[in-house]
Amino acid sequence: MRYELFYWPGIQGRGEFVRLALEAAGADYLDVARLPGRGKGVDAMLRLMDESDREPFAPPFLRAGKLVIAQTANILHYLGPRLGLAPKSEAGRLWAHQLQLTVTDFVSEIHDTHHPIASSLYYDQQLPEARDRTRYFLAERLPKYLGYFERAIEKNAGGRGHVIGRKLSYVDLSMFQLMAGLRYAFPKSMSRRKRYYGRLTALHDRVMADANVASYLASQRRIGFNEDGVFRHYPELEQ
Amino acid sequence: MRYELFYWPGIQGRGEFVRLALEAAGADYLDVARLPGRGKGVDAMLRLMDESDREPFAPPFLRAGKLVIAQTANILHYLGPRLGLAPKSEAGRLWAHQLQLTVTDFVSEIHDTHHPIASSLYYDQQLPEARDRTRYFLAERLPKYLGYFERAIEKNAGGRGHVIGRKLSYVDLSMFQLMAGLRYAFPKSMSRRKRYYGRLTALHDRVMADANVASYLASQRRIGFNEDGVFRHYPELEQ
Repeated sequence: MRYELFYWPGIQGRGEFVRLALEAAGADYLDVARLPGRGKGVDAMLRLMDESDREPFAPPFLRAGKLVIAQTANILHYLGPRLGLAPKSEAGRLWAHQLQLTVTDFVSEIHDTHHPIASSLYYDQQLPEARDRTRYFLAERLPKYLGYFERAIEKNAGGRGHVIGRKLSYVDLSMFQLMAGLRYAFPKSMSRRKRYYGRLTALHDRVMADANVASYLASQRRIGFNEDGVFRHYPELEQ
Repeated sequence: MRYELFYWPGIQGRGEFVRLALEAAGADYLDVARLPGRGKGVDAMLRLMDESDREPFAPPFLRAGKLVIAQTANILHYLGPRLGLAPKSEAGRLWAHQLQLTVTDFVSEIHDTHHPIASSLYYDQQLPEARDRTRYFLAERLPKYLGYFERAIEKNAGGRGHVIGRKLSYVDLSMFQLMAGLRYAFPKSMSRRKRYYGRLTALHDRVMADANVASYLASQRRIGFNEDGVFRHYPELEQ
């Protein structure tokens, strides 16, 4: 099966969680909105959204045969067992999905640190509010979420450092992306709190060393972090 | 199967989307944190969270036999086919779930209208920011989400006004709850925009007339809307 991923070109954003799964599994896929030519690019993506009977609310979405599936966690829930990146049992899949939905909530809160008032405003039009929201985020929310994921790894006894079971899953890949993104956005806070996240740090390093992931990260297919995505480095927010 | 729902007593909140599904299906369930006695109440809920190997990040969560499942949309994804409130095919379940995850995003944005800076602060400690966020929410986000759901009903040709297929699903129940909650929180805006949401209004009325739902809404089991939940009526935010 050749999968088609549709997401905004130029940012990692929410699409990156799907891209990491496809890459880690060595799946055959097209990153449609980043390709030139007929039936490709952003226009094709927007057209498919409008025309779909089962319309996505927003990118990312995946075309798999006749299916068009949106919502990052839903895409991973579908792909997980097919790519060998999730348990096959219903209980295992529900648990993986539950964790991924908590990643979704966390990502939304990370986004709102720089856009607490409106996504349609520029960052510098909501700077004082972004400072306030970030202060509470770093003091309360970031420790709560990362502490939760750290504990999930700890409770997965015999899991060799994985969040679920004993091998790589899409949740591990999402942990890598969270840690990488948070270090980019909030280097001082992440460095200061490093001792609390030993298991997440080890998992990040281990995912990064996976052959497929390493090859992906070194390629042009990996878009760099930048100030248009979810994880943005605005030093003034960390003061 | 007797299901056990765990959620904060005193508010509808996110738990209400699950409660509506259990009630509409006439399922056998306990609302554990609202019950007195041994092994019941909020303490029992918090203890179960801590002790679970597959720890919920937050309520609501559901116990079904040996399974403990958290994240509202994940619970509904599990319950849907079992309660006859979702398609049984994988494609149908993915579509229902995709819509429910968009409800989740919307609910989070509704919550943040009154808490744009921090959940740990009181509303009146972030009033100016709440006014700003609400202004953009009502002008941009509310029309975008409700327009999307209205279109989903429209695109479901032959669906007799349902969002999915031709009969009641948990997504219909969530549409009811959204419309009821938004009318409570933002009566002026919802009244002003009523003509754009004819299908959602008809669906709301139809769900409310369902025998099981009507009986539930008239019972003590339905907690009223109040200013501790997701949908809050603060008239000053609508000015």
